[in-house]
Amino acid sequence: MKSVRKPITIDEAIERVVASSTLGDTETILLEKADFRYLAEDIIADHPVPMFDRSMYDGFAVRASDTAQAHPDAPQTLRVTETIAAGEQAKGRLQPGTAMRIMTGAAIPPGADAVLMLEDVREDKDDQGPYIEVTTPVAPGTHISHRGEDMAEGTVLARSGRRIGPGEKAVLATFGYHRVKVYQQPVVAVLATGSELLPVDAPLVPGKIRNSNSYMVESQLRRLGAVPKTLGILADHFEACYHAVTKALEEVDFVITTGGAAVGDYDFVQSLIERLNADLLFNKVAMRPGSVTTVAKKGEKWIFGLSGNPAACFVGVELFVRPVLKRVLGAQALHLPRISATLDVDITTTNSFTRLMRARTEFHNGKAVVQPVGLDKSGIISGLLEANSMLVIPGGKRLNRGEQVQVMWLEEEGMHNESARL
Amino acid sequence: MKSVRKPITIDEAIERVVASSTLGDTETILLEKADFRYLAEDIIADHPVPMFDRSMYDGFAVRASDTAQAHPDAPQTLRVTETIAAGEQAKGRLQPGTAMRIMTGAAIPPGADAVLMLEDVREDKDDQGPYIEVTTPVAPGTHISHRGEDMAEGTVLARSGRRIGPGEKAVLATFGYHRVKVYQQPVVAVLATGSELLPVDAPLVPGKIRNSNSYMVESQLRRLGAVPKTLGILADHFEACYHAVTKALEEVDFVITTGGAAVGDYDFVQSLIERLNADLLFNKVAMRPGSVTTVAKKGEKWIFGLSGNPAACFVGVELFVRPVLKRVLGAQALHLPRISATLDVDITTTNSFTRLMRARTEFHNGKAVVQPVGLDKSGIISGLLEANSMLVIPGGKRLNRGEQVQVMWLEEEGMHNESARL
Repeated sequence: MKSVRKPITIDEAIERVVASSTLGDTETILLEKADFRYLAEDIIADHPVPMFDRSMYDGFAVRASDTAQAHPDAPQTLRVTETIAAGEQAKGRLQPGTAMRIMTGAAIPPGADAVLMLEDVREDKDDQGPYIEVTTPVAPGTHISHRGEDMAEGTVLARSGRRIGPGEKAVLATFGYHRVKVYQQPVVAVLATGSELLPVDAPLVPGKIRNSNSYMVESQLRRLGAVPKTLGILADHFEACYHAVTKALEEVDFVITTGGAAVGDYDFVQSLIERLNADLLFNKVAMRPGSVTTVAKKGEKWIFGLSGNPAACFVGVELFVRPVLKRVLGAQALHLPRISATLDVDITTTNSFTRLMRARTEFHNGKAVVQPVGLDKSGIISGLLEANSMLVIPGGKRLNRGEQVQVMWLEEEGMHNESARL
Repeated sequence: MKSVRKPITIDEAIERVVASSTLGDTETILLEKADFRYLAEDIIADHPVPMFDRSMYDGFAVRASDTAQAHPDAPQTLRVTETIAAGEQAKGRLQPGTAMRIMTGAAIPPGADAVLMLEDVREDKDDQGPYIEVTTPVAPGTHISHRGEDMAEGTVLARSGRRIGPGEKAVLATFGYHRVKVYQQPVVAVLATGSELLPVDAPLVPGKIRNSNSYMVESQLRRLGAVPKTLGILADHFEACYHAVTKALEEVDFVITTGGAAVGDYDFVQSLIERLNADLLFNKVAMRPGSVTTVAKKGEKWIFGLSGNPAACFVGVELFVRPVLKRVLGAQALHLPRISATLDVDITTTNSFTRLMRARTEFHNGKAVVQPVGLDKSGIISGLLEANSMLVIPGGKRLNRGEQVQVMWLEEEGMHNESARL
């Protein structure tokens, strides 16, 4: 019997990688290039928004008190003295008994304290010029967006570590961030090992399979916000693999290998770690799939030795690679989101290790309901297609339909659409 | 009083854009470039996966019947006749009373019907060579992944219209899709109009604000899978805007304008549609924010005239631009996902129009709970930061805390993390 590795719990393994992880370097980039990146500075309002009281609609700026007596049977007439276009300011102060035509977004003139919408007044003109007739009193403040009501000066709008999306961009642009400081994207080398692996464009031959892990892992890395660097496929030849990994470690800070992770004759991740004189974080986790997952550090460089089984490899990236890279990226949230859900089937088999079953979580009347998808074997690829989550089954447990369980949420677009109509 | 537009419901507006939308063109690209794109072909298994019965672990291929009498007190000895590396095949048939050393992923030799894990046997050798001692019977089929159990030949694995992510890539690579047929990404021109708008890198001057809508809309477009094309800012000058839009329509199929959408003196979207002789789909929707939203088509080209108010502009993209572009992209799901949630506050104000309030939906014990964030005014930007969803409040309704409401889900990473530990 071969060397026995001592398994640690998933939580312990995650804690070890998080404890060893560090923030990455920052860079300053153009705002239009900043989608999906993480802020490396707090965004603080250096002026109130709006900067000035402004009109929310096209209409007329008035003194509310001038409309107090207005009634459909006795319209109040107000002379229109000027027009304020958006981006312009009134030439003078609004005088009692007058109105100024004002466009959406334009600054409220001094003296005015309310806006009447265009469609709520009657416009006309006579020898003395344009006027309006008001038939309903308007309350002070109506249709005015007040200085600072959106964002007060000095407000921390977004903390460092927030991912940049549409809302962040609107705020950054409002405050003049033509360029923004973000964390650099980590480059991660991906090496598939295994003499059974063929390139994706090769015809199948007996005993061999095509390399699918590299494509899967690289896709996972892109979704995380990292930049994958493909090292291709290597056969189960230790010296060649050692050479490839050491060369990669000279160029990048993160190397993922898939395959060669177990305890067989051609499995070399252990030997690799030893020969590199790297610090082992762990080489076995009490989980299925992916128990033979190795994480080690050589100085500040990381080596992730993931299983060659697709499902196990997938889990390894999401549980252990994700938090390390998210930390480098400066992200506030390091892990997959976890929510609880109602189990929709019985889980009758047990395993002493915690199981992460590929699953589909859907929402029925606002309640999360989960069931496993595909065969629960680590080599299975097809289940990855339908899964939008991973169902967590604690070690040694059977579970009944209706129990509350934990799920890890995987997808960005997998949320179930309960209704197509309002 | 100005021209009155006739509002239609949100559902009616969505139905009109969907009814006029069409699939885009396709292209064939390298698999590694296919992340976030949509399949333009069904993926069908042209061979079973696995192609051959294979070992799930490093261990020994045996005949289960040879282990039937094995017991810790009376180990069964099996001669090891050869080693099958991953990617190789056995030289001969497994003979009764013998075992073959086999690596994970290697083909099960003819004659064998079970695999013993390396850690479950004792290996040794004598003059006649290596042998193993088995102490527990193994059932037929143990630790074998059977031909076709993952994916049977002829199975439709993924339908056209599925977005490509890690699982899809694993499957595509498995079946040799070095290149994959996907829908082309639509290019969408974005033009911000308004004399009050300054470029993001300009210092603020009285009465003006910086252009934030273009950055926000372009970010929304990238998340949808489209390619934004910035046309910058134009002042409220009809001829210049008309010229910019007609020029853009010569180059791209989709033009979004922000601002100039209402009925004021400097609002020109209506005039633009008329002068282009475009077909109006609608120019008013019974919703807040964003009631003055215009969508029109000139032949196969689309013009979206969105409000200049950030919140209204945001909603216009998500409700009306999204389904048109998702259709072009070939996506199966055209709309934001909608789920129901429990309202966590009272909504005491009413509006005759349906309201879409920026909101935060979180999950507590597997149940979705929603509350509005930020001020409910269309010009407000800050609420966009905290919102991960939009709360739908039907026209004319007040709502009480505890009622079930509909929410539209916005985010990819906003799901609340109920627990950080397993």
